[in-house]
Amino acid sequence: MRELLEAVADGSISPAAAEAELNGYVTSEAGRFDAARQQRRGIPEAIFAEGKSAAQVVALAETALETTGRALLTRVDDEQATALRTALADSDPEAAIERRHSTVRVLAPTYEPPELDATVGIVTGGTVDEPVADEAEVVCLDAGATVDRVDDIGVASLARTLDQVDRFRAADVLIVAAGREGALPTVVAGLVDTPVIAVPVDSGYGYGGDGGAALAGMLQSCTVLSVVNIDAGFVAGAQAVLISRAIDRARR
Amino acid sequence: MRELLEAVADGSISPAAAEAELNGYVTSEAGRFDAARQQRRGIPEAIFAEGKSAAQVVALAETALETTGRALLTRVDDEQATALRTALADSDPEAAIERRHSTVRVLAPTYEPPELDATVGIVTGGTVDEPVADEAEVVCLDAGATVDRVDDIGVASLARTLDQVDRFRAADVLIVAAGREGALPTVVAGLVDTPVIAVPVDSGYGYGGDGGAALAGMLQSCTVLSVVNIDAGFVAGAQAVLISRAIDRARR
Amino acid sequence: MRELLEAVADGSISPAAAEAELNGYVTSEAGRFDAARQQRRGIPEAIFAEGKSAAQVVALAETALETTGRALLTRVDDEQATALRTALADSDPEAAIERRHSTVRVLAPTYEPPELDATVGIVTGGTVDEPVADEAEVVCLDAGATVDRVDDIGVASLARTLDQVDRFRAADVLIVAAGREGALPTVVAGLVDTPVIAVPVDSGYGYGGDGGAALAGMLQSCTVLSVVNIDAGFVAGAQAVLISRAIDRARR
Amino acid sequence: MRELLEAVADGSISPAAAEAELNGYVTSEAGRFDAARQQRRGIPEAIFAEGKSAAQVVALAETALETTGRALLTRVDDEQATALRTALADSDPEAAIERRHSTVRVLAPTYEPPELDATVGIVTGGTVDEPVADEAEVVCLDAGATVDRVDDIGVASLARTLDQVDRFRAADVLIVAAGREGALPTVVAGLVDTPVIAVPVDSGYGYGGDGGAALAGMLQSCTVLSVVNIDAGFVAGAQAVLISRAIDRARR
Amino acid sequence: MRELLEAVADGSISPAAAEAELNGYVTSEAGRFDAARQQRRGIPEAIFAEGKSAAQVVALAETALETTGRALLTRVDDEQATALRTALADSDPEAAIERRHSTVRVLAPTYEPPELDATVGIVTGGTVDEPVADEAEVVCLDAGATVDRVDDIGVASLARTLDQVDRFRAADVLIVAAGREGALPTVVAGLVDTPVIAVPVDSGYGYGGDGGAALAGMLQSCTVLSVVNIDAGFVAGAQAVLISRAIDRARR
Amino acid sequence: MRELLEAVADGSISPAAAEAELNGYVTSEAGRFDAARQQRRGIPEAIFAEGKSAAQVVALAETALETTGRALLTRVDDEQATALRTALADSDPEAAIERRHSTVRVLAPTYEPPELDATVGIVTGGTVDEPVADEAEVVCLDAGATVDRVDDIGVASLARTLDQVDRFRAADVLIVAAGREGALPTVVAGLVDTPVIAVPVDSGYGYGGDGGAALAGMLQSCTVLSVVNIDAGFVAGAQAVLISRAIDRARR
Amino acid sequence: MRELLEAVADGSISPAAAEAELNGYVTSEAGRFDAARQQRRGIPEAIFAEGKSAAQVVALAETALETTGRALLTRVDDEQATALRTALADSDPEAAIERRHSTVRVLAPTYEPPELDATVGIVTGGTVDEPVADEAEVVCLDAGATVDRVDDIGVASLARTLDQVDRFRAADVLIVAAGREGALPTVVAGLVDTPVIAVPVDSGYGYGGDGGAALAGMLQSCTVLSVVNIDAGFVAGAQAVLISRAIDRARR
Amino acid sequence: MRELLEAVADGSISPAAAEAELNGYVTSEAGRFDAARQQRRGIPEAIFAEGKSAAQVVALAETALETTGRALLTRVDDEQATALRTALADSDPEAAIERRHSTVRVLAPTYEPPELDATVGIVTGGTVDEPVADEAEVVCLDAGATVDRVDDIGVASLARTLDQVDRFRAADVLIVAAGREGALPTVVAGLVDTPVIAVPVDSGYGYGGDGGAALAGMLQSCTVLSVVNIDAGFVAGAQAVLISRAIDRARR
Repeated sequence: MRELLEAVADGSISPAAAEAELNGYVTSEAGRFDAARQQRRGIPEAIFAEGKSAAQVVALAETALETTGRALLTRVDDEQATALRTALADSDPEAAIERRHSTVRVLAPTYEPPELDATVGIVTGGTVDEPVADEAEVVCLDAGATVDRVDDIGVASLARTLDQVDRFRAADVLIVAAGREGALPTVVAGLVDTPVIAVPVDSGYGYGGDGGAALAGMLQSCTVLSVVNIDAGFVAGAQAVLISRAIDRARR
Repeated sequence: MRELLEAVADGSISPAAAEAELNGYVTSEAGRFDAARQQRRGIPEAIFAEGKSAAQVVALAETALETTGRALLTRVDDEQATALRTALADSDPEAAIERRHSTVRVLAPTYEPPELDATVGIVTGGTVDEPVADEAEVVCLDAGATVDRVDDIGVASLARTLDQVDRFRAADVLIVAAGREGALPTVVAGLVDTPVIAVPVDSGYGYGGDGGAALAGMLQSCTVLSVVNIDAGFVAGAQAVLISRAIDRARR
Repeated sequence: MRELLEAVADGSISPAAAEAELNGYVTSEAGRFDAARQQRRGIPEAIFAEGKSAAQVVALAETALETTGRALLTRVDDEQATALRTALADSDPEAAIERRHSTVRVLAPTYEPPELDATVGIVTGGTVDEPVADEAEVVCLDAGATVDRVDDIGVASLARTLDQVDRFRAADVLIVAAGREGALPTVVAGLVDTPVIAVPVDSGYGYGGDGGAALAGMLQSCTVLSVVNIDAGFVAGAQAVLISRAIDRARR
Repeated sequence: MRELLEAVADGSISPAAAEAELNGYVTSEAGRFDAARQQRRGIPEAIFAEGKSAAQVVALAETALETTGRALLTRVDDEQATALRTALADSDPEAAIERRHSTVRVLAPTYEPPELDATVGIVTGGTVDEPVADEAEVVCLDAGATVDRVDDIGVASLARTLDQVDRFRAADVLIVAAGREGALPTVVAGLVDTPVIAVPVDSGYGYGGDGGAALAGMLQSCTVLSVVNIDAGFVAGAQAVLISRAIDRARR
Repeated sequence: MRELLEAVADGSISPAAAEAELNGYVTSEAGRFDAARQQRRGIPEAIFAEGKSAAQVVALAETALETTGRALLTRVDDEQATALRTALADSDPEAAIERRHSTVRVLAPTYEPPELDATVGIVTGGTVDEPVADEAEVVCLDAGATVDRVDDIGVASLARTLDQVDRFRAADVLIVAAGREGALPTVVAGLVDTPVIAVPVDSGYGYGGDGGAALAGMLQSCTVLSVVNIDAGFVAGAQAVLISRAIDRARR
Repeated sequence: MRELLEAVADGSISPAAAEAELNGYVTSEAGRFDAARQQRRGIPEAIFAEGKSAAQVVALAETALETTGRALLTRVDDEQATALRTALADSDPEAAIERRHSTVRVLAPTYEPPELDATVGIVTGGTVDEPVADEAEVVCLDAGATVDRVDDIGVASLARTLDQVDRFRAADVLIVAAGREGALPTVVAGLVDTPVIAVPVDSGYGYGGDGGAALAGMLQSCTVLSVVNIDAGFVAGAQAVLISRAIDRARR
Repeated sequence: MRELLEAVADGSISPAAAEAELNGYVTSEAGRFDAARQQRRGIPEAIFAEGKSAAQVVALAETALETTGRALLTRVDDEQATALRTALADSDPEAAIERRHSTVRVLAPTYEPPELDATVGIVTGGTVDEPVADEAEVVCLDAGATVDRVDDIGVASLARTLDQVDRFRAADVLIVAAGREGALPTVVAGLVDTPVIAVPVDSGYGYGGDGGAALAGMLQSCTVLSVVNIDAGFVAGAQAVLISRAIDRARR
Repeated sequence: MRELLEAVADGSISPAAAEAELNGYVTSEAGRFDAARQQRRGIPEAIFAEGKSAAQVVALAETALETTGRALLTRVDDEQATALRTALADSDPEAAIERRHSTVRVLAPTYEPPELDATVGIVTGGTVDEPVADEAEVVCLDAGATVDRVDDIGVASLARTLDQVDRFRAADVLIVAAGREGALPTVVAGLVDTPVIAVPVDSGYGYGGDGGAALAGMLQSCTVLSVVNIDAGFVAGAQAVLISRAIDRARR
């Protein structure tokens, strides 16, 4: 610890990074960032931007960048994204910013991405499911997994689904996102012997709308699925990463 | 009317049948029976046995038999069925009794069944759906329709479903009953250009159990379905009869 | 297929139309359009505009127009409608645009509408039900059916309802839309021997508001109804079309 | 008070009756009985038998009988009714016991019933509604009102309802009980200028069953109704009594 | 009828008024107005402004004014109220406009208000209940009843409630509006022998917010209440009018 | 620890008691008993008997008795109580068994009860609330608190409530249990400056029955309450004990 | 009282303060303010600003300030806060205004804060819980209690929680606020023998969002907790004050 | 196929086994058994006994045994288990029957169990969770996985949980079952980098009882979990098997 404090003293490590090393978390004005989560839990803490001010989002992203080499943000709106871009242009102009719908990843120039020998298949039923699937995809890519994305495969015209069975079977783990009646994960899982993580999507209207019918249908599925909450793309992606990493370790 | 009353007086018509002819309904101790429903609405009044005493069920069945030539009963339990059998052995020994799970039909020996030139396809997902489908089937058969029954076609092994597409397409109208996540009507409807009536079935457990997920999923279906309440096999069958009769009239 | 590709090569058919012919669906930037649904399912894929950007709506409408001769759009808001008008003025100035509340239909000048020998009665309880009934009406008209529309027939003054019984009886199939307590479909169905499709409408307030009481009441109806989800005018209309077409085929 | 205590001392009044006179309530082993409710609230405290032991029901009934001249009991099952009959044969052999389904009234031989110059119309949709309507009827009769009971008037065959309009209009206040979709109070209220109290009844099945659809529909009624809880026949009857008594007072 | 048509012809009666006399309802561009409701049901049709355009509200109000001498509007927002004021300044400058929160009444200069010999007590728990109570009050005043309004009597400080018992007892019928836990109608009803109509108000937050706890509590009340839907001030007022009119008739 | 093991060896302490001392919990065939909870959390682990076999209940009770000197059991049915009595007659004939409705306490002859200088007021609305209040009372008595119990104080006749204000004010902490609309805790709390713990009770019927209206009303109370789950008499009692002990410590 | 009126007459006391002294409440244009609540209930009436106009908020705050020496406001938005600041600059320029998120306290210069010898620990799970905890904290500080605030202690990294056990144990009463799955109060309460008041916070998304999962989890806690409604920081704080005051009284 | 039919002809293979080989499913009187599911989906079809007659359960179990070498049954009650034992004593006396609470496995003497190089940790919060965990365990053992079972680790005494971290970390995949507030999976998952499958258990009472709070809490978890339906031990076990098999394949 003496060593660490000396490194802080001579400026070779920032106070935030030192706090992260010592405590596992870093205190910023916008709250604590759990920098050690990656190591303890195997997945980084993502910054859930919804309901936070742009300033809070920027502060947390900069802390994440400083202590873990990159920041992962979900449910980012346009105002928050612009604020982030502006702030980083100033504080860290070399950082790379990637945006997929409402999911944003920021990479320090020195960040060395991990590698993971596993393929996650990500399947959606329709256009409305894509932002949710993007959340999942970014987490998987961040962890170094290969992603095979198959979009717009609704059960209303089954031929579109059956066409893709070979790709479903080639994946190590599948994430299937669907709204409305949410039947797609059941149909896909019935065709493969791969673990399937089902993600209900907030779509539909009237009774069972807002993802409620999809969630209930996935929990009642007559095949084997495990399920995450409505629109929880990040959680599905992170669970796929944990499974992929176990497979990757076994492959080495 | 004078004629009718004279027929009552000389015993050639029972008071109940006369009341039915005059009022459209018959008053028994167990309540009124809407004998004119068949003519007005195109389908007979069925006797919903659940929650009625065996004596009430017998009284209503005998009234129906006397005024419309047959009685249709749903949700009949063993005690009620036995009471009915015993009572009819006495009052109407020539009446024929048919039972399918909890659905019972009693036919007067003189009853002349109608004919209907139309085929109703009735499809179920699993064993648990069969009593509900039986309710529907008995109503369709009672109306003279041809029924093509396809059981045990769950979406968990899709091949079983796809095998039967030709039979689905041959029907004039389809009734599809399913519990758990209730995806079967959506999958079937996506394969045909026939009207599909979806029946959610009270099965499953936990969240969305008791038919709730199935109902929500059918109402949210991304294809075209109309839906009846959970376990409402009679309603689905009667709606199929109304459609079949319109087709039958057009065919003549 | 060679022929088709040559037609693409010489420009007599667009790549989108060729893809539709080959695959059944067409890929645009706004997602896939299921061009073959009309043929397979008997009804066209409608574009559900709610939650889509104006650009996505335009792209899907143009794809539909190109591959099926017309586009059917539901839940279109003013901004989307204006964007569509502007885009079509440019890309397809001869296309005809029809708008009924939030339902829009675009017709290519060469489009030849089908004919259907059947009448759909569409009945509403009050002013608030009309946009939902319009969705149903546009689908029926698009399919070539005759529509008999009876508006503003609430059960609070029953005389208004009873006045119209002859028109109800003259229809081949009835769609009845109602909000609040949703009793109208039950009252109408009790008077006719026609199949009735009930549409609960999102109206009312407090307990059972937003169409919830109407949906529950229709599913509990003591007469025979089949039901679609709250505000699902399109689904009701499409189901009426499937029934009408079966009647029409039988009439020929 | 001295007088009262002397009356207790010489046995011309029981201790319970004296306690009732002094405190308004009487303490028995089965809890307190609110003997003064009649005077304060205008309606007697009824004994809700459901969930009480037969012994508790008997004790409370005897207390009511002793202090108010009669006992009114709701939701009485066969075992409780038998226990009551047995106990009274012993303790008060001249008391008269009236039973209507699960509602029971016991009258002391000296009880002088009140008179009320008002008519309560009580209307039901079907057989299943009758025990609930009986609760209401017994309360109204107990208060001395005239009751005009019209049973089995479901909206599925509207003619049965319309036939009775003159009787509906002749009542000073109407109670309308209905289960399933609960449309009857709305239809009746639309025909009269009388206050209507709607009682949803626990019937039906699946979504909106157990009286839920009926309650929601009555609260959403597009005409003017006030509503009591599901199966709350006693409350509806008591409210009708309060209205009738106001009318009766005005008539005098 | 000949007479009526001649009156239309010579302009002494408007076509709308004539249609109202003949049909009971008047057709305007904004839908039908049930002009005969007052006569048939004893209360006028109120115009529910929420969700209607300002133009529709104006059209319906003018129709009501023309055919029944005044217009009663509920849930009117500022924009609708301004539009109404502007339109009437032009079409009917002598009409008097009264506004209480979101309730508006417009009176033709020739309108002769009815008289009703009955007092309605209207009680509220807090500031938030007042707009709902205003709806009720305006209906009662419109019918000619005397209104005794007691505001801001919450159960959290019971002394405020108990102070007013004499006024509660002096009323012929009581309307009690309360939000949050909705205990006020129970407390008030326990103190009087008057019929009490309870109105749950949309207030509170979290579990049971939006009037849900108040509605449930009023339906579960251990005293005698009848209940209307959340925020249904108009319905409560109209029911009080029907009761008041019965009392008034009895008093004459 | 050596000492402890020697005590086990020479039989002066049982293995269970030794395990409890070492681990804090004891393993029996019926699961672990958290013997250290008393010390850590300030309240003993109660044995929730519902859903357990009589044998499991006996095993856990004997373990509790052996390691903490007494056993506290809630939701005990007759069969379980009899089994317990029989078993203890054999294993520990000197143990004292106390039963209040479904709550049972068993005391070892050597058990020395604690003393607590604080009074808990326990108030109920009606007979149905008493078993729940008994659960609370037994926990308070077990901890040595003084209990002042006030039963049968419903808000339907407010005088019964107001009579008792002095007793409410004399308590250090109040537990108020009520079912139906659950208004009693609000009324009581409005009269005192004591902390009030509200317990909703599973009573009532129809909408808001089973304690739902009471729970919602207590959470929405316009005065200050904290709330426990429906029928959670034990939790309310234990919370009152924790507060009483803090007061007791401050008094010393 | 004569004295009081003379004080009003000579201006040494305001009419509002006199009304407060006489009646316990003060009538302003924005409703009544319960000035005596502090004395009767031990906690001041807070002004719930949500849904009130800025003018109403100002009027109530000024009344509170005048009659109780300070005003406590919850759920204040920016517009209301600004209006308050502006109004007070004019009417009471020496008043001190404190704001914590949406909670505001205004202090008259002459106000003498009470002292309370007790410590309330306030614990939050994350950033989103802080405004709710602030409500609680302001009430506790207003009552003179010592507050020990521990923020950002989520159960996802348990080490952060376990680190703080000594501070938890040092408090006399604990308030624990948490959203999402709401496990924090259970985890904290398992570690201490202090009364814990749990506050569910409106956070999360999808099923169980808006505080619903947190509320349910806290009511189901397998340890001892009492609970307030979602986001009810004020109620939790006030309950902690009532407990603290009892402890404080015992300490004196 | 010729070969297969000859094998049937000479009796070396049963007709059921031949049908299974050809169709993938076998038809018995109790419905179809999906014998090919093991191969297609990687897990056998389990027989869900709840709601089936003993005869149906026996028939399906015998079919499973004959075609896949063993039968896996869940939710078996005593009557069904006895019937199975009796039937097998006759038809297949050498079959081994294993029972864990309501889960039963029957093994043909010739059955050769698979081997799987992976460890599934199964963790429960309390006694009530054990039957659900047993379902999961039997599926894992059937697939050849190693199971490490840790029972009775509730969060109310956290030390019991923290003690077991090393065992949690040693597993390849974790199943965590908990009822009441369902916090255990979140606490466990926060300590490991292993995939965790959370199983809510039907326990608790009042609001959020029957597993509802646990399900909501697990879906809202602030760490990474995937979830199955309430009491769905079989599904959790089967998902763990699919993950384990992927790891096992990678290890080879």
